[in-house]
Amino acid sequence: MSLELLQKQADTIRFLAADMVQAANSGHPGAPMGMADIVTVLSKYLKVDPTNSTWLNRDRLVFSGGHASGMVYSLLHLWGFDLSIEDLKQFRQTGSKTPGHPEYKHTHGVEITTGPLGQGVANAVGFAMASAYAKNDLNTVSEVIDHHVYCFCGDGDLQEGISYEACATAGHQQTSNLTIIYDSNDITIEGDISIAWSEDVAKRFDAINFDVITINGHDFAAIDKALETSRNSDKPTLIIAKTAIGKGAATMEGSHHTHGAPLGNDELAASKTKAGFDASKSFVVDADVKTAFDKTVSGKELSDAWNDSLTAEDSEKLNKLINPIFEDISYPDFSEVSEMATRDSNHKILNAIAATVPGFIGGSADLAPSNKTELIGMGDFPKGRNIHFGIKEHSMAAITNAMNIYGLYKVFNATFFIFSDYLKPAARVAALSNIPTHFVWTHDSIGVGEDGATHQPIEQLSQFRAMPNFYTFRPADATENIECWKTALTMDAPTGFVCSRQKLRNLKGVKVTGDVSNGGYLLEKREGADVTLMASGSEVALCLDAAAQLEKQDVIVNVVSVPCFDLLCEQSEDYIEEIINMDETFVIAVEAATAVEYYKFADHVIGMSSFGESGKANELFEKFGFTTDKLVANIKQYIS
Amino acid sequence: MSLELLQKQADTIRFLAADMVQAANSGHPGAPMGMADIVTVLSKYLKVDPTNSTWLNRDRLVFSGGHASGMVYSLLHLWGFDLSIEDLKQFRQTGSKTPGHPEYKHTHGVEITTGPLGQGVANAVGFAMASAYAKNDLNTVSEVIDHHVYCFCGDGDLQEGISYEACATAGHQQTSNLTIIYDSNDITIEGDISIAWSEDVAKRFDAINFDVITINGHDFAAIDKALETSRNSDKPTLIIAKTAIGKGAATMEGSHHTHGAPLGNDELAASKTKAGFDASKSFVVDADVKTAFDKTVSGKELSDAWNDSLTAEDSEKLNKLINPIFEDISYPDFSEVSEMATRDSNHKILNAIAATVPGFIGGSADLAPSNKTELIGMGDFPKGRNIHFGIKEHSMAAITNAMNIYGLYKVFNATFFIFSDYLKPAARVAALSNIPTHFVWTHDSIGVGEDGATHQPIEQLSQFRAMPNFYTFRPADATENIECWKTALTMDAPTGFVCSRQKLRNLKGVKVTGDVSNGGYLLEKREGADVTLMASGSEVALCLDAAAQLEKQDVIVNVVSVPCFDLLCEQSEDYIEEIINMDETFVIAVEAATAVEYYKFADHVIGMSSFGESGKANELFEKFGFTTDKLVANIKQYIS
Repeated sequence: MSLELLQKQADTIRFLAADMVQAANSGHPGAPMGMADIVTVLSKYLKVDPTNSTWLNRDRLVFSGGHASGMVYSLLHLWGFDLSIEDLKQFRQTGSKTPGHPEYKHTHGVEITTGPLGQGVANAVGFAMASAYAKNDLNTVSEVIDHHVYCFCGDGDLQEGISYEACATAGHQQTSNLTIIYDSNDITIEGDISIAWSEDVAKRFDAINFDVITINGHDFAAIDKALETSRNSDKPTLIIAKTAIGKGAATMEGSHHTHGAPLGNDELAASKTKAGFDASKSFVVDADVKTAFDKTVSGKELSDAWNDSLTAEDSEKLNKLINPIFEDISYPDFSEVSEMATRDSNHKILNAIAATVPGFIGGSADLAPSNKTELIGMGDFPKGRNIHFGIKEHSMAAITNAMNIYGLYKVFNATFFIFSDYLKPAARVAALSNIPTHFVWTHDSIGVGEDGATHQPIEQLSQFRAMPNFYTFRPADATENIECWKTALTMDAPTGFVCSRQKLRNLKGVKVTGDVSNGGYLLEKREGADVTLMASGSEVALCLDAAAQLEKQDVIVNVVSVPCFDLLCEQSEDYIEEIINMDETFVIAVEAATAVEYYKFADHVIGMSSFGESGKANELFEKFGFTTDKLVANIKQYIS
Repeated sequence: MSLELLQKQADTIRFLAADMVQAANSGHPGAPMGMADIVTVLSKYLKVDPTNSTWLNRDRLVFSGGHASGMVYSLLHLWGFDLSIEDLKQFRQTGSKTPGHPEYKHTHGVEITTGPLGQGVANAVGFAMASAYAKNDLNTVSEVIDHHVYCFCGDGDLQEGISYEACATAGHQQTSNLTIIYDSNDITIEGDISIAWSEDVAKRFDAINFDVITINGHDFAAIDKALETSRNSDKPTLIIAKTAIGKGAATMEGSHHTHGAPLGNDELAASKTKAGFDASKSFVVDADVKTAFDKTVSGKELSDAWNDSLTAEDSEKLNKLINPIFEDISYPDFSEVSEMATRDSNHKILNAIAATVPGFIGGSADLAPSNKTELIGMGDFPKGRNIHFGIKEHSMAAITNAMNIYGLYKVFNATFFIFSDYLKPAARVAALSNIPTHFVWTHDSIGVGEDGATHQPIEQLSQFRAMPNFYTFRPADATENIECWKTALTMDAPTGFVCSRQKLRNLKGVKVTGDVSNGGYLLEKREGADVTLMASGSEVALCLDAAAQLEKQDVIVNVVSVPCFDLLCEQSEDYIEEIINMDETFVIAVEAATAVEYYKFADHVIGMSSFGESGKANELFEKFGFTTDKLVANIKQYIS
């Protein structure tokens, strides 16, 4: 190692990041400057190929503190990814490739979207778990998978509960190829971390079965040794790197004022001068620095060699994982079933998918027997396909996000619908990044019954429907459930399956107009209808019964099933008018949930305006108005 | 201690809980049976007064695993709270006092609603933090506050990230009066905990500065000693009680089958016989057992003595805390302000409230300088009023929930609006329980600007508006912000304040009809209006500008400000029709958010249908259609 060159490399990163923040007059110089020495050393070993950025066996590098984006973009540029100096100059500008926090699929080389603290740590655990499974799955003859997973994080990441959950899981799984580098600079926004945090981090990670190495994060030799030790460990490793925030700033080194604001032109110039850089220049990358970082040749050699090493058997196996043939799935035939909970039909569907799609894996946050998510006879992760996530919903979701974009697997997670609240921040990252994680959520309404108000989802459907690019399916019966999965499997976005605990009648539905892939379809049409009822899940059968009863009273009713409200919103006005007929019918939506979003289509909504309560499910449906008689009476009142 | 009587007491709890579950044919016998020995010993020391259940200096006891409700209700009955054997027989029935999970204000003696795992641990930390502050505040002469806080939790609670966060805070704050009793039975729903968790819990809690004591949870003497040690510790204590789930079950002791289903009549009878109880009887409480548990006399003695010990000065101080005179608050005068971010007006309002309301305290999850929540000159918690919660939003919310019902304080918490996602489960508990926690959420829209999509709330307003009994305020300017706080301070429900990062123009609004307490009011009325615009926050000024521009083009527009959509929904149809005039005007809602819920009132919604992006705030408002020109064009298109 040439210490001189390393220092120049690190300083180049420092000043690129600081220049970017200065040019944008917005951003975070402190963390990039603090971590520059570590990423410089790490760069030497990192196996990535900018010419083939999705190379399966690349090292995964996650920057959990996405606010250090100035450093992320600088590195991507220096390594040779498709990110120019001009892109760096457009940092944080509208439409640029270099947004305030790194976004997956938006910027070449960004492994996953980070920014909300703690998510990235859990994502890194997810990448490590995916690779652990892949090793068991694929390394039968040769070492198809032998990469490492690195994650940078800061105080904030480690204070967030999600990171505890995820790291406890990594410690349990003993994901040996995971190295978490903790940028321990003792500074957060309100000041020194000691105002809010005073734990022995090393001891805590030792307690969850990590190797822990503490180093001076500005000592190149120590960094190098720690990284080497971690790569050879049979446990996950936490490297506690003691750093100074804003390292290299002329007068502000170590100050929280470097965290979230530009250094200022004078301070930046003085810092450059101090480091031997030309203070009059910005965005400078000298040739020797560029050469030292560049991965375009060395990375390509690595990925080519890996490609060459694959046997025909490896390639075939990989192809089957990467390109599953969903059309070959042999779904169960529910046509003769009279009634079945959608959590139960979902169980059969999950198993049917797993039988055909080799990379379909997943599990629950300790509720598999209730969520009905066991993949029968398929063993436990990481040797089998059933993942036991523990009672850690938030990390479960973030872990599965990363597993889904690892490159091989289609991964679902599961919990009670009420506990979707615990994982919502990770669901949002999936939506923002087009990550097709499948969320299985059972116990979907007051039908939960005796567990009571704390366990009965009321507003969760509205919540997820309000989130852009997230698709929530609430099937009305077993057969519709299959159609929902067919639609969801091919989507480039996260999907939620909201399933009932209680049995739902088989509707033997005939689609009059449209189908599940439209989000809503006309299920029952009567000539000269006065009313259109819209519903999802357990309330569809209720609406059919109400419609039949109303017909006897000369009220003519159409029924629209809405398995996916989000997809319905994307349909053409003509389609929506055709199935709902807003011009000629009074439209009433019926859902045992807040359901306020139905006003987009409906004249009136019959939903839940309060929390539920503890009692037998049928008594609760009666109490809150979801019986045929009550619904009929309610509808007649509104159309009178 | 008579070991024989203790055993009989514990077995009485076991069989009461098991009888309740059997009668309901639903519930969780395993945890109550496992913890019965510990709660029996704890009962001896617990300072509570069933005749004065809100006695300020009582010990607080939180059962974080709310599924152990059979035990909770049994204990409350045995101690003498207003809960009869008949109530126990109605366990989990519609309308009963004994729902599936304990609910605050619903059942006499329940300290806080628990059920969603991990919440109760954070609540207990909140009670301990409130008492720590109260000691500093009140124990100037005598020991006004010297109670203990106990919390029972299980594996699930400790796996949840929120409990890590909260316990780290307790360790940091060194809340010495906190004892967490961990029912360590090694069993979760999917089986033995070793399938998902393998950490050294004792070491982890040692790392966060707890005293840790490990005992056999069925050894009365060991339990007694551990509780005594913990009460005398100057640190928070974790008692790891190794227990058998379903302890005392004839053949199922230690089995996860006792967790969430009735034991069955045969198993229950055999268990009673084994314990020397009459197998033919249910819901049995012998007189000696009742006497041993009963707190009605001893508790009243304690609370009476405490009342007698209060000095006149103490009483006056307590009265000022408990009964703040909100009318005396001297709010800032913003009438001459031309523009101000609502986070800044909020800052001044918070300080104005704190100046008059002695129990008004709070803080941020490490964003106080950005959230503008510092109570100036009021020092740091627990000696002052500014709480540094660390980067732990979820535990912050649950901690403040408990602090708010401690009996003395009005507590707010704060973070960026986007990170409300991290704390939503705790906000839900507040809503469900009528806990008036104030949530301050700044950086409320794409106005966040350069931090980009990961940091720009889009769906969060819809999310919180969908939740029953939660009131979200999004003030349009500084003066409206004051009115929002006036309304919120007296509400018996949680409230959220959604404030802008960017400056908002002072509207100098004249309320034509209604006011902020109605949730929405007519701000600008024109004769013969064609259009009504509804908006909140930063979009109100935009609508006023658009209305003025449209008037020049002969489109006559009324403008309705909607600072609290939730309150507007509670108004009479007449009021709503009066201000919105749905019959005679085309109603358009404008909000830089999903805003789909406005369809309840509006013919059309101009909102956000995608995530935001990174860029200058004004460029983003332009890009997404929130400028006067774009809005005018959009409106004209819709009414043409």
